[in-house]
Amino acid sequence: MTQIGFVGLGKMGGNMVHRIRRDSEHAVVAFDFDEKAIRQAVKRGATGASSLKDLVRQLSPPRIVWIMVPAGKPTQETVEKLAKLLDRGDMIVDGGNSRWTDDKRRSEQLKSSGIDYVDVGVSGGVWGLEVGYCMMVGGPQKAVKRLSPILDVLAPQTNEQSRAAIGPRGWLRFGPTGAGHYVKMVHNGVEYGLMQAYAEGFDVFDKCEYELDNAKIAHLWGQGSVVRSWLCELAARAFEADGNELEAIEGFTEDSGEGRWTIEDATAHDVPTPVITASLYARLRSRGNGDFADRVLAALRNQFGGHAVKSAPATATKVPGTDAKAGGGAAAKAGRRRGGG
Amino acid sequence: MTQIGFVGLGKMGGNMVHRIRRDSEHAVVAFDFDEKAIRQAVKRGATGASSLKDLVRQLSPPRIVWIMVPAGKPTQETVEKLAKLLDRGDMIVDGGNSRWTDDKRRSEQLKSSGIDYVDVGVSGGVWGLEVGYCMMVGGPQKAVKRLSPILDVLAPQTNEQSRAAIGPRGWLRFGPTGAGHYVKMVHNGVEYGLMQAYAEGFDVFDKCEYELDNAKIAHLWGQGSVVRSWLCELAARAFEADGNELEAIEGFTEDSGEGRWTIEDATAHDVPTPVITASLYARLRSRGNGDFADRVLAALRNQFGGHAVKSAPATATKVPGTDAKAGGGAAAKAGRRRGGG
Repeated sequence: MTQIGFVGLGKMGGNMVHRIRRDSEHAVVAFDFDEKAIRQAVKRGATGASSLKDLVRQLSPPRIVWIMVPAGKPTQETVEKLAKLLDRGDMIVDGGNSRWTDDKRRSEQLKSSGIDYVDVGVSGGVWGLEVGYCMMVGGPQKAVKRLSPILDVLAPQTNEQSRAAIGPRGWLRFGPTGAGHYVKMVHNGVEYGLMQAYAEGFDVFDKCEYELDNAKIAHLWGQGSVVRSWLCELAARAFEADGNELEAIEGFTEDSGEGRWTIEDATAHDVPTPVITASLYARLRSRGNGDFADRVLAALRNQFGGHAVKSAPATATKVPGTDAKAGGGAAAKAGRRRGGG
Repeated sequence: MTQIGFVGLGKMGGNMVHRIRRDSEHAVVAFDFDEKAIRQAVKRGATGASSLKDLVRQLSPPRIVWIMVPAGKPTQETVEKLAKLLDRGDMIVDGGNSRWTDDKRRSEQLKSSGIDYVDVGVSGGVWGLEVGYCMMVGGPQKAVKRLSPILDVLAPQTNEQSRAAIGPRGWLRFGPTGAGHYVKMVHNGVEYGLMQAYAEGFDVFDKCEYELDNAKIAHLWGQGSVVRSWLCELAARAFEADGNELEAIEGFTEDSGEGRWTIEDATAHDVPTPVITASLYARLRSRGNGDFADRVLAALRNQFGGHAVKSAPATATKVPGTDAKAGGGAAAKAGRRRGGG
């Protein structure tokens, strides 16, 4: 029986606590700034904590605390607070989407206090509760070994064809600190590319000479085709839920950084990543960015060829303080509609 | 019991005949220019034919003849020869990777002779024999219905989550002539994008600061991650078979046209396909194309900034008549190796 503290009980953290308690005897002490999330975790068999201090107090040394909060400032602050509360031999696990260079810095900073730092890249989204979480792990071998009973219950059972290569559960340590988040970062870069490839294919179908049923195509592609994948299954679900034209969905896609970092580090090592880069750019475009380049393009074409310029609609005027989604983005989209040649 | 003629007994056609005879009572009359392929088909339960004429003679009207030869000239010639041998009410099935516009033209040309034309886009590769072939079908509804017993045995059984949407077997008619090959064409365009996304991810791993085991990564990604797919499983197999560096594999990738056609038709309908396009360009690059642009780039940089120009190795000189693979391609690759800034 392993005891673990969980900080951050959102969609990911909450479900992970649920899975640990549902599928094992491991004990969980759970904390979140949202008291409702704590009550939910307690219902699922965790013990609630009223603060980080209380969480640390309830754990027996050597402690393990799993942080599952947004990458960047929230994770950094949590690590700093925990560092002051924890003792030599304790372990911090960062299960968020941290940049691997942050892992390396934090691990270095924690060295003098003797606190182990383990980075875990987690894939699987809201489906992880049932399917299990695919986990890419970095950090000291001994610490990862101590964490392994928790990783074993969070991960899916390995399928038959991969068991010999990676063992019985779907997690793997890839190397020292940062290696887990590095592999997860590139995983997300690849994910951008896969998503964009499908997205473009369905856009071609949407504008082509045939009347096609996108849900049926996605379902059919799941049956023995070369492009069968979990994302293709999700596409079938999306078209079934939201209709062939996805009318209710705004074409606005965020990114949480891993694509950018993948491209940055690829560039640092002279590795061309045209597809991953184009996928990130498509996301930037989807938010209305690139709109000024569109105007420059139209203006230049007008300058040398006297081509007609479409007057911008009144709403497309840049209003300081409006964000791209609420204002400029939608307006830019309206202005981007196909016009005569 | 349905009777079908098969023309073309290569990797695809040969296995399809095998699957039909192994898994059903349907009769197959088989022809190929390679007599060994015919003998193999006969061993697997088909009846051999010594010519197209003999094949047609052995089939009872209304006949079905499935053509499984390379797209373009070989398919066109086979259709033309068959058109002269077949009668009103007979059916030609093109199971190759024809351009959908060729289907439309041929179907139009066959109209006066009363021969039905059905286009079937087939995905699954050499794995189709065991898994079943995912088939995208276009053509007259009545003809497709007559063909359906054959499609049913060639296709995989539909998995549970897709059965309600597309029926019990993994094939679907998408519309009139050309619709099948159109959906298959875009399938291949998407496939290029998916392959390139994984390829770039592993290239990033190959050059990064960690020592990573690509086979293990591919295996792990198969366990509940967002990027799990059949292609990812094949990547795991490839790294296991050919090593972490794929030393024995030349990075030279052909294309059979569907990617180009996808981009052409997308462009004709003003649909941007940055990822599918970048994937095709990566394949062109992989064959040593783009080498002259590289020289122009180096020459221009030298012109404005006096940057050092690397002298081309003797072998990189363009020799008329050598093909990209044997000569220029490899030389261009040698010349492309990373040099000082």
